[in-house]
Amino acid sequence: MTEDIRMERDTFGEIAVPNARLWGAQTERSLQNFRISTEKQSPELINALAVIKRAAAEVNLGLGVLDDSKARAIMQAADEIIAGKHPREFPLAVWQTGSGTQTNMNLNEVIANRASELLGGERGEARKVHPNDDVNRGQSSNDVFPTAMHVAAAQAIVKHLLPSLKTLRDTLDGKARAFADIVKIGRTHLQDATPLTLGQEFSAYVAQLEHGIQHVEAALPHLYELAQGGTAVGTGLNAHPQFADKVAAAIGKLTGLPFVSAPNKFEVMAAADALVFAHGALKTVAASLNKIANDIRWLASGPRCGLGELSIPENEPGSSIMPGKVNPTQSEALTMLCAQVFGNDVAVNIGGASGNFELNVFRPMIAHNVLQSVRLLADGARSFNDNCAVGIEPNRERIDTLLNESLMLVTALNPHIGYDKAAQIAKKAHKEGTTLKAAALALGYVTEQQFDEWVKPRDMVGHSVG
Amino acid sequence: MTEDIRMERDTFGEIAVPNARLWGAQTERSLQNFRISTEKQSPELINALAVIKRAAAEVNLGLGVLDDSKARAIMQAADEIIAGKHPREFPLAVWQTGSGTQTNMNLNEVIANRASELLGGERGEARKVHPNDDVNRGQSSNDVFPTAMHVAAAQAIVKHLLPSLKTLRDTLDGKARAFADIVKIGRTHLQDATPLTLGQEFSAYVAQLEHGIQHVEAALPHLYELAQGGTAVGTGLNAHPQFADKVAAAIGKLTGLPFVSAPNKFEVMAAADALVFAHGALKTVAASLNKIANDIRWLASGPRCGLGELSIPENEPGSSIMPGKVNPTQSEALTMLCAQVFGNDVAVNIGGASGNFELNVFRPMIAHNVLQSVRLLADGARSFNDNCAVGIEPNRERIDTLLNESLMLVTALNPHIGYDKAAQIAKKAHKEGTTLKAAALALGYVTEQQFDEWVKPRDMVGHSVG
Amino acid sequence: MTEDIRMERDTFGEIAVPNARLWGAQTERSLQNFRISTEKQSPELINALAVIKRAAAEVNLGLGVLDDSKARAIMQAADEIIAGKHPREFPLAVWQTGSGTQTNMNLNEVIANRASELLGGERGEARKVHPNDDVNRGQSSNDVFPTAMHVAAAQAIVKHLLPSLKTLRDTLDGKARAFADIVKIGRTHLQDATPLTLGQEFSAYVAQLEHGIQHVEAALPHLYELAQGGTAVGTGLNAHPQFADKVAAAIGKLTGLPFVSAPNKFEVMAAADALVFAHGALKTVAASLNKIANDIRWLASGPRCGLGELSIPENEPGSSIMPGKVNPTQSEALTMLCAQVFGNDVAVNIGGASGNFELNVFRPMIAHNVLQSVRLLADGARSFNDNCAVGIEPNRERIDTLLNESLMLVTALNPHIGYDKAAQIAKKAHKEGTTLKAAALALGYVTEQQFDEWVKPRDMVGHSVG
Amino acid sequence: MTEDIRMERDTFGEIAVPNARLWGAQTERSLQNFRISTEKQSPELINALAVIKRAAAEVNLGLGVLDDSKARAIMQAADEIIAGKHPREFPLAVWQTGSGTQTNMNLNEVIANRASELLGGERGEARKVHPNDDVNRGQSSNDVFPTAMHVAAAQAIVKHLLPSLKTLRDTLDGKARAFADIVKIGRTHLQDATPLTLGQEFSAYVAQLEHGIQHVEAALPHLYELAQGGTAVGTGLNAHPQFADKVAAAIGKLTGLPFVSAPNKFEVMAAADALVFAHGALKTVAASLNKIANDIRWLASGPRCGLGELSIPENEPGSSIMPGKVNPTQSEALTMLCAQVFGNDVAVNIGGASGNFELNVFRPMIAHNVLQSVRLLADGARSFNDNCAVGIEPNRERIDTLLNESLMLVTALNPHIGYDKAAQIAKKAHKEGTTLKAAALALGYVTEQQFDEWVKPRDMVGHSVG
Repeated sequence: MTEDIRMERDTFGEIAVPNARLWGAQTERSLQNFRISTEKQSPELINALAVIKRAAAEVNLGLGVLDDSKARAIMQAADEIIAGKHPREFPLAVWQTGSGTQTNMNLNEVIANRASELLGGERGEARKVHPNDDVNRGQSSNDVFPTAMHVAAAQAIVKHLLPSLKTLRDTLDGKARAFADIVKIGRTHLQDATPLTLGQEFSAYVAQLEHGIQHVEAALPHLYELAQGGTAVGTGLNAHPQFADKVAAAIGKLTGLPFVSAPNKFEVMAAADALVFAHGALKTVAASLNKIANDIRWLASGPRCGLGELSIPENEPGSSIMPGKVNPTQSEALTMLCAQVFGNDVAVNIGGASGNFELNVFRPMIAHNVLQSVRLLADGARSFNDNCAVGIEPNRERIDTLLNESLMLVTALNPHIGYDKAAQIAKKAHKEGTTLKAAALALGYVTEQQFDEWVKPRDMVGHSVG
Repeated sequence: MTEDIRMERDTFGEIAVPNARLWGAQTERSLQNFRISTEKQSPELINALAVIKRAAAEVNLGLGVLDDSKARAIMQAADEIIAGKHPREFPLAVWQTGSGTQTNMNLNEVIANRASELLGGERGEARKVHPNDDVNRGQSSNDVFPTAMHVAAAQAIVKHLLPSLKTLRDTLDGKARAFADIVKIGRTHLQDATPLTLGQEFSAYVAQLEHGIQHVEAALPHLYELAQGGTAVGTGLNAHPQFADKVAAAIGKLTGLPFVSAPNKFEVMAAADALVFAHGALKTVAASLNKIANDIRWLASGPRCGLGELSIPENEPGSSIMPGKVNPTQSEALTMLCAQVFGNDVAVNIGGASGNFELNVFRPMIAHNVLQSVRLLADGARSFNDNCAVGIEPNRERIDTLLNESLMLVTALNPHIGYDKAAQIAKKAHKEGTTLKAAALALGYVTEQQFDEWVKPRDMVGHSVG
Repeated sequence: MTEDIRMERDTFGEIAVPNARLWGAQTERSLQNFRISTEKQSPELINALAVIKRAAAEVNLGLGVLDDSKARAIMQAADEIIAGKHPREFPLAVWQTGSGTQTNMNLNEVIANRASELLGGERGEARKVHPNDDVNRGQSSNDVFPTAMHVAAAQAIVKHLLPSLKTLRDTLDGKARAFADIVKIGRTHLQDATPLTLGQEFSAYVAQLEHGIQHVEAALPHLYELAQGGTAVGTGLNAHPQFADKVAAAIGKLTGLPFVSAPNKFEVMAAADALVFAHGALKTVAASLNKIANDIRWLASGPRCGLGELSIPENEPGSSIMPGKVNPTQSEALTMLCAQVFGNDVAVNIGGASGNFELNVFRPMIAHNVLQSVRLLADGARSFNDNCAVGIEPNRERIDTLLNESLMLVTALNPHIGYDKAAQIAKKAHKEGTTLKAAALALGYVTEQQFDEWVKPRDMVGHSVG
Repeated sequence: MTEDIRMERDTFGEIAVPNARLWGAQTERSLQNFRISTEKQSPELINALAVIKRAAAEVNLGLGVLDDSKARAIMQAADEIIAGKHPREFPLAVWQTGSGTQTNMNLNEVIANRASELLGGERGEARKVHPNDDVNRGQSSNDVFPTAMHVAAAQAIVKHLLPSLKTLRDTLDGKARAFADIVKIGRTHLQDATPLTLGQEFSAYVAQLEHGIQHVEAALPHLYELAQGGTAVGTGLNAHPQFADKVAAAIGKLTGLPFVSAPNKFEVMAAADALVFAHGALKTVAASLNKIANDIRWLASGPRCGLGELSIPENEPGSSIMPGKVNPTQSEALTMLCAQVFGNDVAVNIGGASGNFELNVFRPMIAHNVLQSVRLLADGARSFNDNCAVGIEPNRERIDTLLNESLMLVTALNPHIGYDKAAQIAKKAHKEGTTLKAAALALGYVTEQQFDEWVKPRDMVGHSVG
């Protein structure tokens, strides 16, 4: 044995653990048994597990089933994890036991060793706090891990995703207001259509995000239901009768979110429906963001040979010789991550559908995907907001040119000169590649003054929002 | 021209239409241009379009923009469609114009011809009611079709899916209550775990469906927002200012559902987020039903070499020579259709994410998938309820045998004889393939009376629901 | 009993069957037990089952295990089905027993009754040919249905999809050649890029389809392996030792495709990997078609406010007053069905991954999706070819205008006047909204003659295909 | 400026770069502009980019367009990256420019700085080697990145995935041979069916993997086609005419794989079909592994209340008191990662379908998913092999017990005593819960000797593989 490792023992015999690490035998064994890819348990999930461990210690202390010094040491150790002081102690792969048992043990071991040290003891087998008997008291992986998934997802949604979506909504709402007077050509089927204002076009994005926020919020109540206290199969065997409610309350206090003990523990342990539904809201937001990012890159396409109605910020060196060529990189990042969210949705669905009897064992995978999707959408919306949306500017001249070149405005002449003559004007303009006005004057059906008076795109955009 | 066809004319020239049919030139042309697979526009969607046409005629009548006799004829013709009297008149493929224009025209043409006949006129070009000017008045495909999608989806959900889910929930709730006293082995990781009651196991299914119903209901408010009145691009150009609100109210009255005019028409025409989110709830229900159907077929596996805890109804001839072999065909149908719903979800997501500017042109595909998923889940849950769930019976003897053979009950001896002796008993039983009781008595650690008194599975199932 | 029904009997007792129908008790019972949605077993699958039944009768006749008259009657009845003479006899839902047992029985019953009539007997219980003992001899649903899936999929791919893809490839190849001399602006990130020829742009579509055809062909060998002869679990119990090979050969002869008996029957019955992989090729084709359809609708966008480089055929009345507004409806249908194929892929994956032990019971769902995807892609590519691709024309004037307005051509000046002056020209042109040439002349860095000589887009497109 | 940073300059002005890092201004700017989640460009992709840069330098040297010392320094710097000596220099997110431009620049900058140092120069603006003019010579991101995706995917498949699948196939083949004499109950619909050998059951897994290997290999030819030499839009502008072929050959030599220059550069740059198809093979392998992992965990379920036919290795401490309870954790990890692969497939499909004109800009996302899926399947199959498959043992006693308790064997009596008496025996056994033999003897239809002679499961398993 070198100085760098210590030997620990479990039911399989001895195993060497790096001495610099707080984790123990079970974590180490999982590292050896699951050498699968590079995805680790998410920091949000580790944080949520630490919150649970802290809450459980506090409740066990109050219920008198854990002695004061141990409980306080556990709470302090958990607080350190929550504060981000032990980032290197949670090395386990997503691809492990489907109940997340080994990550629960990882937390138990790290907290036990750290709490032992806080109590003046050592790390390793002689520690003063026991990972199972003390840190995991009244708990099992089967209720801890589902609880952690709900806590992590709810926190990430409320504290990260919703603020980010609201920021982008507000930015776009500001644009919608600022662009309220800019009349432009509408496009349906990618074809020229009747006009609307650029503000109206942006108001649709605002309405999408507004609904998206509501959709995500509709997923929170189910996420607020916690499995904790159900222990191994949902009956609560080995947990104090008051444990479930008290832990939910403690977690609520620690996080500032209205968590409750799930009325039916069997459901929340055997299924993952709350997360499947929450991801259904996430993928809806992805659909919205994809539409918005796509519209904006198309409207900014060019500089000469695209639509060119918008300018977006240039954030990276494009072609040094080619002014005006601004690659819509934020749209690209955003649409790529939306595609990922659609993919993650499928993984979550399959995992969520695949529970058996008293347990769903696709949990680390589900957690990984839900938390990744939240992170992608939250960061993606924020990045798109800061590096693109805030700097969107209309190219008023180009917008006007396109609008006036359009043949759609001919419909405004119908009431004045009749359908047949109007159609004749449009056909002539189309055939000859001229403007409507030129064709109309050439045919002598209207005077210039009449044309300008009758063909007013602004009168065609209604009184709607934006 | 033979007697069987009539010639109609559109801007492309003449086209032959079967005389027996009420549709016209544009429907016929679509039939020729889109010979793609066999999927037709859903009856639910045709019905919703007829509801819209009826409501629009009524509102146009009230607003004085459509004359009385035409309006009433249109309303009557639409009522006939709603009553299912013209099932063969809507032959168009899902795979057509992405705005659903041709199906909107199909409705306009059928109603125009039928209304003409109701007014004593003929069908075809000389008809007394015009498909565009009269039936489609104040409308465009771009607002009609999204409106129809919301109306059809909301109706199918409220009138078909939710009642079906509630029926299954109630059946399973009845089972949960009936099975409340049956203690059985729990299973986690497919391995024997601590006991619970069969009622508790079923209570999880009830809780899943209860949450599923709430998830689906959370999708309704956005679906209740209607695009009607936005016309071509959302500005409402060519629609009477009061048209949108009045039509939403009329549709609400006709359907009994609380439809409203969408506050932002641009969003509801350019995106399909309400349907993307609604399908997110549908796929969550599919995840729940998949878990339930799977559990039940596994619990009914056997008759001799499976788990064998449940009996399910035998609905088809199985092996005539092999009694007790009952294939779980309802579970198979249900899990197959859940897989389809997961697939449909992806199609809906891609369609929903792919709008451009003022219009989403993946509408018929989205409608097809959403309505199919609703139908699958509603019919599937109903079929599973009627042909399986209502007839589920516990095999009490088998359940008892498994429970008593299990080694998990040894944990009940811990408090009485200590962990070491208890473990010794379990190991002996495992090694020798005997029951715990036999091993315990053989080791002499307990008397038979003590064993029976201490090892009571019923005491291990807690006081939870079920 | 009225004249319209006859009573049949199975192990569940009597059941009324419509006298006009050839199906029997088990089909009728399935109709009652699975009232789920509207999707029926695909005609391609029914056809394949009839092919199998015919081949089996022929082989059984040759092996001497079925008497001559019965065998010939079965073959004749099967031939009638293959010839499409009994389209109303196969009413069963996709959502039934997961092994497809009931559809196998549907075939057995219809063929038995029809064969009985061909032998001068009656339909119903007194029939001269037995559905199980005669029609299903040496077979079980567990090997018949997987065989039918492979036969149906391979036939649909070889006879329908591949020809359709080749037609579209050839059309686009013709366009690529016809457009070989048209130099146009390239676009990357939706931004103006260096030029290429329109022919080169189309050559990418040709290369995509060429690869797609190879991908689909790579899926055929596994599909050519047939389960027939494995009977209930793969051991071949109850099948004549030569049955498997002889049936595969007979099916090969009937279809003209090189089917073989699967070397491992357990695999082909317990899994559906050949179909999962085949659908992987289908979704790749969908990705290609989606790109092509999207490019073409964007290049045809306008008429005034889009890219406008291509004209596509106008197939439906668009706006009568608005010349040149041609909705890209074939692109819309094609992209919608590609989204469906992506969705179907997920359903197939889930079904394929979900076999247990000796049988996969997601078969009717998998068959439904694979055959629908083949149909969608084959019909969709054909429709797009006939109604769009063949009529694509370049708008040479517009293409030239955009190319010459572009600033990308400035790179051609680098070798002559140096990077700095070239950049200066581009910046001036961008700032002032003029052409490069105007800016270059204004700055006096080149003469008009030099500009025309040095800035030749045609020299920038290389010597590649197209 | 502190000692820890250096100032670099690009067209946006100055930017501070950590002095310890070899990257430059563009990498640094990307870090600031894309603060999105935690996913970084895969090491496999970085490696492939370094291979390309090395090959390009070598070819440029040979073509005389890069001077000797610079070329050799670039090659040496690239070799260091390939050797893994600069793991901290590639910090960019997956979610960046959709062409991967910034990661191409990251490589260019790191190599330029490192090469400069190798030449005795410094890192930073005064470097002796230029990122664009030297390292990126004859290249653009638009051809480098697609090339890197093909190189990385092909290498990972050939060197990592295929060996791993072959190892698992061989292990299972060994088991199939070792279990060839173990007759067991078959299961279809989860119900008892006719017997087969355990070896036959495992032979299906072998056949699945064998086909899976062929499916994956079928994807390689398209991956071997490289975009390099197409530069910005596929025309090869700015690349030496021999560059494409020479670079493909050089990459082939460096990797030992038969790469070729893509016959059509436009396709391989505008689409990602080779990767979409390759992922179609990966998801097929996932379907196979899912079936295998599922079967094995079910067959190992128990120890008392499940199927219990197999024992799997115990790798982690389970219940210390509960012998024989072995959680199937390797199956759980494997099925979780299969679900992820199914999800990734959707993301890849969407990305692959979403190219526009001359470029697909979903590249980093596609690369991320393909390489993750390869890693998951390769590592997952390896882990499952090493930690589970190699240690699978049959529980012969349990297998025998189930087989003999089964009622399916009654079919063996048919030929001897007729169907009616056989059915009577089975019904009696089922009703009374006894064995077939007991019922047969009780009814007096056979003697014990006859029963043992006639009912021989071994005679029912055929002569198939396994």
